[in-house]
Amino acid sequence: MTLQRVLPFSKELLKQVVAPGDLVIDATAGNGYDTLFLAELVGPSGRVVAFDIQEAAIESTRQRVKDHSHVELVLGSHSELDRFADRPASAVVFNLGYLPKGDHSIITKPDSTLEAITKSLDILKEGGLVLLAIYYGHEGGAEERDAVLSFVSGLPQKKYDVLRYGFINQQNSPPFLIAIEKKRS
Amino acid sequence: MTLQRVLPFSKELLKQVVAPGDLVIDATAGNGYDTLFLAELVGPSGRVVAFDIQEAAIESTRQRVKDHSHVELVLGSHSELDRFADRPASAVVFNLGYLPKGDHSIITKPDSTLEAITKSLDILKEGGLVLLAIYYGHEGGAEERDAVLSFVSGLPQKKYDVLRYGFINQQNSPPFLIAIEKKRS
Repeated sequence: MTLQRVLPFSKELLKQVVAPGDLVIDATAGNGYDTLFLAELVGPSGRVVAFDIQEAAIESTRQRVKDHSHVELVLGSHSELDRFADRPASAVVFNLGYLPKGDHSIITKPDSTLEAITKSLDILKEGGLVLLAIYYGHEGGAEERDAVLSFVSGLPQKKYDVLRYGFINQQNSPPFLIAIEKKRS
Repeated sequence: MTLQRVLPFSKELLKQVVAPGDLVIDATAGNGYDTLFLAELVGPSGRVVAFDIQEAAIESTRQRVKDHSHVELVLGSHSELDRFADRPASAVVFNLGYLPKGDHSIITKPDSTLEAITKSLDILKEGGLVLLAIYYGHEGGAEERDAVLSFVSGLPQKKYDVLRYGFINQQNSPPFLIAIEKKRS
């Protein structure tokens, strides 16, 4: 297969911008897969802060990263993620939608999502990436997708490149990726 | 810059699927830049067929590939490109829009474009790619863009992967890429 799926493509991008020692943020820990991947990329000299509003997600993530003491788990909203940034972050990742295998009525919502994206861009290092994997098949998903697309399409091109990457002939609304790169000034 | 522009990304994909000796088709020769790139990829043991409906484009391309005798130039519509395929093609590339620096009233049109895409998929090798760089800022461009998007979004996912790749926060309607991969059966 030549055309990379969304998640492998996303990981390739992270490998290019995240180095050992970096600060990175997982805005939606979910089951902790991304948190673990980020923890391995930054290594013990780095720092990962992972957020989730659901205890089940934090617990699941805690198990997955138990060998990585440089990961901090925050049970709470990612809309205050800037308070945890002691320096510019090289990447901030989001999975927008609901917790897989969790309670599907608990979803990310447009207002807090846009606030969190704005704060992510503020704390982002030049050359760093904000990655948004957008799941929209659930109720309320299309509304959030459209709010995010509208917001990121309006980001000034002098400061940011906003890429959309996704497969458009698939059933079951697979996620697509928005990757925002902060340009070097 | 981590996020690749559309044209470099497109070239990376071509490098992955086109090998020396292959048949490849440039459905819209334009100024011949893609034709030359393809001629170098397939080498003298391969074959490139390049189409354009404008004499100025064919002439410009002829100059650019004059050292490559394995390139055939066809002054005519790409809607009959299948007649030139003596074997499955590893790639077919299109630039949809108008000839840069040429007569902007001469544009690709939805009907013949969709016919040419259909024929491209018919002659495509398994694992091969049809690449569509879609320029849509000109008059009639949005109509063609929407016709193409509607068509490719309906391609069966059992046989094809259809990727959309492009920057969504740019002024001046830069092109985006549609990449269609024929799955191996």
